[in-house]
Amino acid sequence: MAVYTPVATETLAAFLSDFNVGTLTSAKGIAEGVENSNYLVATSGGRFILTLYEKRVDTDDLPYFLGLMTHLAQAGLPVPLPIANHEGAIIHQLAGRSACLIQFLDGLSVSHPTLGQIAATGTALARMRQATQNFNGRRDNDLSIAGWRRLASKIGDAADTLDPGLSYKIAQSITLLESQWPARLPQSVIHADLFPDNVLFAGAQISGIIDFYFACNDIAAYDLAVALNAWCFDDVGSMTLPDAIATMLAGYEQLVPLEERERAALPLLGAGAALRFLLTRTYDWLNTPPGSLVSRKDPLPYLRRLTWWLDHRHAFA
Amino acid sequence: MAVYTPVATETLAAFLSDFNVGTLTSAKGIAEGVENSNYLVATSGGRFILTLYEKRVDTDDLPYFLGLMTHLAQAGLPVPLPIANHEGAIIHQLAGRSACLIQFLDGLSVSHPTLGQIAATGTALARMRQATQNFNGRRDNDLSIAGWRRLASKIGDAADTLDPGLSYKIAQSITLLESQWPARLPQSVIHADLFPDNVLFAGAQISGIIDFYFACNDIAAYDLAVALNAWCFDDVGSMTLPDAIATMLAGYEQLVPLEERERAALPLLGAGAALRFLLTRTYDWLNTPPGSLVSRKDPLPYLRRLTWWLDHRHAFA
Repeated sequence: MAVYTPVATETLAAFLSDFNVGTLTSAKGIAEGVENSNYLVATSGGRFILTLYEKRVDTDDLPYFLGLMTHLAQAGLPVPLPIANHEGAIIHQLAGRSACLIQFLDGLSVSHPTLGQIAATGTALARMRQATQNFNGRRDNDLSIAGWRRLASKIGDAADTLDPGLSYKIAQSITLLESQWPARLPQSVIHADLFPDNVLFAGAQISGIIDFYFACNDIAAYDLAVALNAWCFDDVGSMTLPDAIATMLAGYEQLVPLEERERAALPLLGAGAALRFLLTRTYDWLNTPPGSLVSRKDPLPYLRRLTWWLDHRHAFA
Repeated sequence: MAVYTPVATETLAAFLSDFNVGTLTSAKGIAEGVENSNYLVATSGGRFILTLYEKRVDTDDLPYFLGLMTHLAQAGLPVPLPIANHEGAIIHQLAGRSACLIQFLDGLSVSHPTLGQIAATGTALARMRQATQNFNGRRDNDLSIAGWRRLASKIGDAADTLDPGLSYKIAQSITLLESQWPARLPQSVIHADLFPDNVLFAGAQISGIIDFYFACNDIAAYDLAVALNAWCFDDVGSMTLPDAIATMLAGYEQLVPLEERERAALPLLGAGAALRFLLTRTYDWLNTPPGSLVSRKDPLPYLRRLTWWLDHRHAFA
């Protein structure tokens, strides 16, 4: 959550002269996301986000991510449009990094979403599922079930320093999920990281869906499972918020009714999504020195979510 | 250079309802300065910087800093105006910190200032000197000559890990400066940290002077000495940029002609200013773990500036 790569004003002004966006009036490094360097850039033509991609983003994936954002924006979703330069390019080189200039969208991410905002988020997920039916890009989900065992073995017994028995619980959950994972469900493009900080609201209305840098092709309902984990549990992660899950599902089904087998699989997908964030947060926790640039997120609320889903295996059957 | 204290959108919206600034439309944590948490806040009424003061700022000094900014803005200088709430207060409590809402000023800080920009900065320093003649606040400079020996002893021999012999050079310079410091020169309020990143330009014109959190009362020409160090040397710090010093002095003297004794004292003041940044950067370098939130700045270019000034003791006599 910081600017890693500095860009001199003079360099930035020269870079922007390749675009039809007017002249630079201000630029501030912003603390958006943890993966990339971001600048909020104002010109005589409007406001933009300039992103420089740092090492955690594979630049080979940029055509997929930026193509998807363009596709969704052109389909009328509130997704920031990547801006093409005079040559029609959207991926550039700047200060030794791959870079992209993206439309700035007004709006606010909420810390304590209302039920109306949760419903709107469910509907937005369904709308992305519909709108990407004719999107041709393809990217595997390297943080789905095929990647969990590898990540767990990189963490190893060190997980037990966070919570005694955690490494055993992780191994046991992976075995369970591998044996029962609903691999034949309908697939689609998914956002895969639709947490509250990636949704901007203007009141009850969604004005922005951002941060597509985990997007991929996977089980369509898995996107919903990620969002249910992110939006519908209390801070500790051991209880769902009253009516939140039903509200998000109702919002989703306003546009895309779930098949019966998708609904029945939701607790397993929910457990998988909880495990995915448990694993990455545990790995980051153990491998991030305290006081470093990236703020660490407590993994244990995701252990409690995992437990909740496994205790409620037939919640939607 | 990062946001330390998170503020929930809901908390921010409630905070802003105490002001006559319209409703919140967006908020981004920005990487401004290294001392405080800063948010760029947009409302239906305009753009603002929200600053939360972290531990390096003594909150007892806030009335001085914010009073000075208000004074300069009302005198017509391009200084961001602190915004009063409905009760007329400008210092508030938010998320456990003292906080202030400040006007946002457009403009760009430059990495490689032109001579025109250097002249404008000299003139701006003189304008601040004039405009603060009737400012009543008073704050001692805790980073001037009285504080250097204490800071040097906190650093101790560890300085030699940076450059062999550095601790001796520091001690020797302090002794020299203490014996010759021109204590009887005209005093004024000074910015004391007018580096290029604290001056915003719209072309050749200054559109913003920011970051008054080192401002204090001290020798008036010392402010110029800080700026000469910051704007007029090459990257390595061992040579002045062609015409830069003369240009900044000419810009200053357009408004405030220097007295002969001020001019004669400039090399000593320049050496003092170089020593001040050598000391604080050395201390920060030795006490900041690599990879931490605050990026460390190489102290040694300030050792070379110090040497330059001591080698040019009669440059302006």
